Amino acid sequence: MALLVQKFGGTSVGSVERIEAVADKVKKFRDNNDDIVVVVSAMSGETNRLIGLASDIMEEPTPREMDVLVSTGEQVTIALLSMALNKRGCEARSYTGGQVRITTDSSHMKARIVDIDEDNMRADLNAGRVIVVAGFQGMDETGNITTLGRGGSDTTAVALAAALKADECQIYTDVDGVYTTDPRVVDSARRMEKITFEEMIEMASLGSKVLQIRAVEFAGKYNVPLRVLSSFKDGGGTLITTEDNGNMEQPLVSGIAFNRDEAKLTLVGVPDIPGIASKILKPISEQNIEVDMIVQNVGLDKHTDFTFTVHRNDFKRATGVLQQICQDLDAKSVEADDNIAKVSIVGVGMRSHAGVASQMFDALSDEGINIQMISTSEIKISVVIDEKYMELAVRSLHSTFNLDVEPIAE
Amino acid sequence: MALLVQKFGGTSVGSVERIEAVADKVKKFRDNNDDIVVVVSAMSGETNRLIGLASDIMEEPTPREMDVLVSTGEQVTIALLSMALNKRGCEARSYTGGQVRITTDSSHMKARIVDIDEDNMRADLNAGRVIVVAGFQGMDETGNITTLGRGGSDTTAVALAAALKADECQIYTDVDGVYTTDPRVVDSARRMEKITFEEMIEMASLGSKVLQIRAVEFAGKYNVPLRVLSSFKDGGGTLITTEDNGNMEQPLVSGIAFNRDEAKLTLVGVPDIPGIASKILKPISEQNIEVDMIVQNVGLDKHTDFTFTVHRNDFKRATGVLQQICQDLDAKSVEADDNIAKVSIVGVGMRSHAGVASQMFDALSDEGINIQMISTSEIKISVVIDEKYMELAVRSLHSTFNLDVEPIAE
Repeated sequence: MALLVQKFGGTSVGSVERIEAVADKVKKFRDNNDDIVVVVSAMSGETNRLIGLASDIMEEPTPREMDVLVSTGEQVTIALLSMALNKRGCEARSYTGGQVRITTDSSHMKARIVDIDEDNMRADLNAGRVIVVAGFQGMDETGNITTLGRGGSDTTAVALAAALKADECQIYTDVDGVYTTDPRVVDSARRMEKITFEEMIEMASLGSKVLQIRAVEFAGKYNVPLRVLSSFKDGGGTLITTEDNGNMEQPLVSGIAFNRDEAKLTLVGVPDIPGIASKILKPISEQNIEVDMIVQNVGLDKHTDFTFTVHRNDFKRATGVLQQICQDLDAKSVEADDNIAKVSIVGVGMRSHAGVASQMFDALSDEGINIQMISTSEIKISVVIDEKYMELAVRSLHSTFNLDVEPIAE
Repeated sequence: MALLVQKFGGTSVGSVERIEAVADKVKKFRDNNDDIVVVVSAMSGETNRLIGLASDIMEEPTPREMDVLVSTGEQVTIALLSMALNKRGCEARSYTGGQVRITTDSSHMKARIVDIDEDNMRADLNAGRVIVVAGFQGMDETGNITTLGRGGSDTTAVALAAALKADECQIYTDVDGVYTTDPRVVDSARRMEKITFEEMIEMASLGSKVLQIRAVEFAGKYNVPLRVLSSFKDGGGTLITTEDNGNMEQPLVSGIAFNRDEAKLTLVGVPDIPGIASKILKPISEQNIEVDMIVQNVGLDKHTDFTFTVHRNDFKRATGVLQQICQDLDAKSVEADDNIAKVSIVGVGMRSHAGVASQMFDALSDEGINIQMISTSEIKISVVIDEKYMELAVRSLHSTFNLDVEPIAE
């Protein structure tokens, strides 16, 4: 008997049939005497339908009213799921974000949770009721409806789990867990039993769009065990939790992430004087262009090359801005390349092991892949390579770091 | 400069285009420095869509969850209308029933308003904002969402007008006012400038489905001037208000109502003993059949005939029940007729004038129409006649009581 918070996303509640299937699943846990809080999203398509209505009226709809509008999406789902549970003899009660008293700040459309009043929920749980909460929404201190921004239902689930000190927060999704890498690229990609919060954050931000990063950070901060599972098939999913220090066999590398969303820009032959980085990046950020990797080499002849990556959508704009900067700073030239890919190895094991980087570079070199940029953090090493080598690099690294084989049972 | 509560029903807000048209209308009043509270229904079709989802899950959905579900319909409209007003530079703020603090009892799906907290609204009005309130809904004392039952948006509007002591509560509908009778039957039917609450209740219950009776009763009780107007064309509509005692020229009859929804049943030759009416009607009401008119004549030879009308939908069932009663009470026979119509004249002027009834009966007699039943109240006389004479009777009475001609301007 455990206290579980279970979150079902839009696809999992996309139709009456799917809502009935979720009710079946929840009832199984309840029959096992688990206490259950369910968090649901809007039925898939519904949020976009509502946003469409708003944009028919106003290009930039009033944020306060936008929240009043889109929050109805989850409200429909909580009512329907509660009915489906009641039909199964499983007493359930629905709550909007405001009703369950998820207090947020007043930043409409991107509100942050300030406080959760758990008293109501405790009373229902003690009475044996399943609690069904609308994800993604809350209420500010003066009673205005707020939303947490897209994907915020994950955050709601984690926040409720933290407030209730739940045994586990289970996020049901389209996939059955977090994989060592994308199975569409590497046949032998394996579902991980466990991954740490830090690793999950690095994996997620690099393209494994299973969970909202914000929810993972939140879970890490409050130490809420988080499990990613499939809504549609059975299985243990992947548990995201704190580092298990007792485990001596912590793998060096847990997973390989990659994306081809970025483009690379180099300002060649720029005078190597203090403050030059800011002189280059400030005009870029003033155009609301986000920069990811930045590399600046030691200069020769008082000149240096300055390289950074941006999202491909911003590539053309960034190139234009950089050409102007090139003139202003009297640099030599601008080199631009959008045929690149970023490949990263992620693993908390790196912290205590040297030589991981050279192992990675060797593997790529063995395949004849040239490394264009390198960037490292405590638990991640990323390289930029020619886009055409991306799959090859991922497969090679997946095997180099023994991710193809099941680890010895712990 | 007045304080107005304006209610727009589902058809008036049935699409983004219509919502924009409502915003135009509201803005005109606001530009004239009127303070405006708008009450809206769900977009037409939306409530039925939501009910459909629920009934896909459960035959009799949990009432509490039904309210959570259907209340989203109005919530969508308040957000969209507020956006449309903001776009026009007309500052607006939306409120759900719970947010505006319409407190109701806990009878889900048919809640009654207990209290309205007007403080929030006053603050917004003082700041020059238009307030857009979701009709049909409220919140009980423990924070559960409730709904007032179908058509409850009219009631919300009247209740807000009463709480705010508004100068007028304007109900915008598909029709441009209340008519002396149905213009489809009588070409010369006129829109009334004014009608009393009592008359409106009698007219509405007899088939002029312009307003919810409950809202009219509520308006009468709190003396809220109520105006029915068209959402789609300009015009003064019909003002529903208290009797104007200063007006000596109060017309005898204000309007002619009629319907062919009823059927007539007679138990012939029933023993004329005390308690016989109850012995007949109790088995009928036990079948959930509602009885409208009841007539019992003075008996001859210790026997009498007992006649009543029921809705035509219940005709067959009622006939069956009555045949059983006929046996049980040893009555002579059952006569059943569903080719009848009910025609009524309504007017507060009747109170102080004798002879109205005979004037009515004379008019019908002049047309050769036989009266089968008569029932009277203080401001209404109803007769049951053969259905085929209904239109003739209505036209004849319309002209007899001078409703064809515009009254002298007051």
